[in-house]
Amino acid sequence: MLTGKNYIGNKLSGEGNIFFKTFNPLLNEENNQVFVEASTKEIDEAVMLSAQAFKQYRNISGKDKAAFLNAIADETLALDDKLIQTYCSETGLPEARAIGERGRTIFQLRSFADLVAEGSWVDASIDTENPDRLPLPKPDLRKMTIPLGPVVVFGASNFPLAYSTAGGDTASALAAGCPVIVKSHPMHAGTGELVASAIIKAVQKTGMPNGVFSNLNSSGIDVGIQLVKHSEVKAIGFTGSIRGGRALFDLAAQRKEPIPVFAEMGSINPVVLLPQALKENKNLPKLYADSITLGTGQFCTNPGLLLGVKSDELTEFVKRLGEEIVQIEPSVMLHPNIAKAYHENENNAVAQSDVNVVANYTNNVKSNFAKQVVATALGKTFLKNPVLHQEVFGPYSLVVACEDVEELEAIISNLEGQLTGTIMAAEKEVTEYINIVEALQNRVGRIIYNGVPTGVEVCPSMVHGGPYPASTDSRFTAVGINAIKRWVRPFSYQNWPNELLPDELKDENPIQIIREVNGKKTTNEIK
Amino acid sequence: MLTGKNYIGNKLSGEGNIFFKTFNPLLNEENNQVFVEASTKEIDEAVMLSAQAFKQYRNISGKDKAAFLNAIADETLALDDKLIQTYCSETGLPEARAIGERGRTIFQLRSFADLVAEGSWVDASIDTENPDRLPLPKPDLRKMTIPLGPVVVFGASNFPLAYSTAGGDTASALAAGCPVIVKSHPMHAGTGELVASAIIKAVQKTGMPNGVFSNLNSSGIDVGIQLVKHSEVKAIGFTGSIRGGRALFDLAAQRKEPIPVFAEMGSINPVVLLPQALKENKNLPKLYADSITLGTGQFCTNPGLLLGVKSDELTEFVKRLGEEIVQIEPSVMLHPNIAKAYHENENNAVAQSDVNVVANYTNNVKSNFAKQVVATALGKTFLKNPVLHQEVFGPYSLVVACEDVEELEAIISNLEGQLTGTIMAAEKEVTEYINIVEALQNRVGRIIYNGVPTGVEVCPSMVHGGPYPASTDSRFTAVGINAIKRWVRPFSYQNWPNELLPDELKDENPIQIIREVNGKKTTNEIK
Repeated sequence: MLTGKNYIGNKLSGEGNIFFKTFNPLLNEENNQVFVEASTKEIDEAVMLSAQAFKQYRNISGKDKAAFLNAIADETLALDDKLIQTYCSETGLPEARAIGERGRTIFQLRSFADLVAEGSWVDASIDTENPDRLPLPKPDLRKMTIPLGPVVVFGASNFPLAYSTAGGDTASALAAGCPVIVKSHPMHAGTGELVASAIIKAVQKTGMPNGVFSNLNSSGIDVGIQLVKHSEVKAIGFTGSIRGGRALFDLAAQRKEPIPVFAEMGSINPVVLLPQALKENKNLPKLYADSITLGTGQFCTNPGLLLGVKSDELTEFVKRLGEEIVQIEPSVMLHPNIAKAYHENENNAVAQSDVNVVANYTNNVKSNFAKQVVATALGKTFLKNPVLHQEVFGPYSLVVACEDVEELEAIISNLEGQLTGTIMAAEKEVTEYINIVEALQNRVGRIIYNGVPTGVEVCPSMVHGGPYPASTDSRFTAVGINAIKRWVRPFSYQNWPNELLPDELKDENPIQIIREVNGKKTTNEIK
Repeated sequence: MLTGKNYIGNKLSGEGNIFFKTFNPLLNEENNQVFVEASTKEIDEAVMLSAQAFKQYRNISGKDKAAFLNAIADETLALDDKLIQTYCSETGLPEARAIGERGRTIFQLRSFADLVAEGSWVDASIDTENPDRLPLPKPDLRKMTIPLGPVVVFGASNFPLAYSTAGGDTASALAAGCPVIVKSHPMHAGTGELVASAIIKAVQKTGMPNGVFSNLNSSGIDVGIQLVKHSEVKAIGFTGSIRGGRALFDLAAQRKEPIPVFAEMGSINPVVLLPQALKENKNLPKLYADSITLGTGQFCTNPGLLLGVKSDELTEFVKRLGEEIVQIEPSVMLHPNIAKAYHENENNAVAQSDVNVVANYTNNVKSNFAKQVVATALGKTFLKNPVLHQEVFGPYSLVVACEDVEELEAIISNLEGQLTGTIMAAEKEVTEYINIVEALQNRVGRIIYNGVPTGVEVCPSMVHGGPYPASTDSRFTAVGINAIKRWVRPFSYQNWPNELLPDELKDENPIQIIREVNGKKTTNEIK
């Protein structure tokens, strides 16, 4: 069923001369299938086909795009156990996770299908003319969003389904009316090819233009660089490391025509443990031991930094967190390279001056497994050492004991941008520590009350993004239906004849969407 | 009344050692007032004060921000004739234009006041919890937009009021909850200081925090560079040249923490003259002669490129456009430097191979006045010479005669991004030339039917922006209430206690805004 080739539009193609395999971290051996990296010619072919497809795809109705997205969901489900087994063999993640992530992917596809089938998402706005206005007549102006053009999606190592081939970036871009070229993640190229085959089946079954989707294999960084530099590519979606995301952002900004890059990058997701909460909430150590180790710590919302003010309760919390976390059975990481990076980054972090290891799973573990670690440092140590501010991707967390509330506020204000911030508080503590809460709010995209940052609900009110380097543009979200806004721009028609306007802007409102007409939201027609 | 000093928050300050004067282009002499450029220390002081003010200003209610914006409008009007006279002395523009532009500025301020007083602009969205959901409970998530932080505004040479000190960028940023630091335009530093004094009066009368607004003089590029590089600055608004805007965009992208730059830059605003329209519309030459020379051609929406297919009618149009345009009395440009640049760029354009001058106002004109010019070239000449694609800021336009419709489409597809595109068409011609129209739509932010691009209506359905280099981010507009979206980011609260939420997200909807609750737009409270 796997071929190891690229999809250049609907065509399987493998003309390149760089070959690679994926790796099963549980078995600690390579998988059998050989993949062939896309050649420069194939990359150009995919992009030019995509630009051609855009001319047709940008005008396809919301209902037809919805049918396409639902067909992708159906064909992905039809891959059945083959997909689940390939996913597990390329990630070491358990079957239940694979099935859960597939469910999330299907839900995302169908959410975007519903959004574009209904149609009001285009933010239609109409200001009717006033020919009698003085000193000049007021023209008729009508606005809606239109798609940017071909979008390149860089999949995530840690979400082979939900943030990769047919994941949130692809689903939102296709929903917006943009063709998509996926730079497939080398660690799960087989999962990627299977999902790509489902998308291509959906393209053909629903009559979408050839080139609306392509899937390009890559073993390193060259394919991605060529894609970002290509003049016909109009936007980039990326999920991954700060180094990778920033490199693509820089390339895109240096183009003759700079293009938007939405890169969702690293985060250490600070958690503030307020004094009374530490006293009252006896479940905190267990709650956080579980969150730190969930999915072997391989979530972008993993809590990597716990902040409190020095107290007996904080000392007790640290001790119990250590006891809880070493009781958890270590699990496998996605790939030997990720396990290696985890151990290097974790070793580097705990080797910094005045950092103490509280808990370290000391038994031997199998190859590619991660030992969970909790360390602690004083506020002043953290403040002066930027190494401690960096993400350690894996089951690691640093507890910082601040001298006082002022130091805690200084630490929060000096943090880089984060996806999330969490406040663990007893009643009235949020009011009492409002400066802390506001400082945290200013550094994050989502703030959580008495919970854990892991678990990103897919719903319209979710923000998955945040100030740099959580993302390269805090004005957008990668999760939820508003993720579509990354790929569209507003467009005005002035004095355009009614019969030539798109349905969304016609007087009679034929598709019955909510529009803003002369400043009022309404589904009424214009008479 | 003028001091020549900077406003560092509410304080007048002139500690620098670089001095300059503005210029009266009509009298061809310097104005009397000496201005002092902001020093590095003053720049830092303004930014740090702004960051401090943000902590308070970000939480100020919509109603209080509205009172502030309306007070700015009132205080600007109270400057009365002093403002109009200073404006005219620094620009050479006529009094009627000054009064009209002041009206536009006041309208913009009051539009943003109305927007934030009403409050629904924050895009509030609520997804209520479902504790019984399996496998995991669904959390309560609530989202709204929050301000980015201090915004630096670079005013435009050609709009000393509407796109400068208290112009659209400043009004939208203050409405969003962002403090503003204006890098005052050196050509109209006096107008800038007067308007700044009105803003400071409004700050004091409405009790806004000191530092919510600063106005910094600059004679060159140094002040702007320091501002864009300052770590406490969180976004940039700019109106001006491609060279200037791109330089700021590059600086902002190279920061450790890159920040959004919305630069509205140059445009040649292509106009497509379809064959039947050329036959039927005998008023075209007069209409376009007027539009090309309006405001001495100093509008970013000036029609610099007229495109048609070779025909007797096109030849006749070019001849008559030339006859019309030389009958118009030349007018003065904003500044000797702008007049000099116009003559250089215009001379360079018409000196290109195979470009023919159709009309050139040949009588002598006073210093700083611009002679209007119309030139013509074949499609193939235009296609191969990028110099002809560049904006000539002033009363200049190039008419391109294409060999056939295919060449016309190729030219449009190869254009850089534009603020506007215009189609002059007879009945049914839009349908007949749909490929031309769609190619044009793909390159512009606003498309106009049978009109002229000059004249940018301030209303919600206006898009003033477009693909690069019309702007640095086509996903936003600089004109109309949606300009506020450039300065805010979405923010989620998860499981946050109702009484601690901002009013916009509380169950009881105390300020009665439109919200999306579990996917439905409503003003209802949540029970």
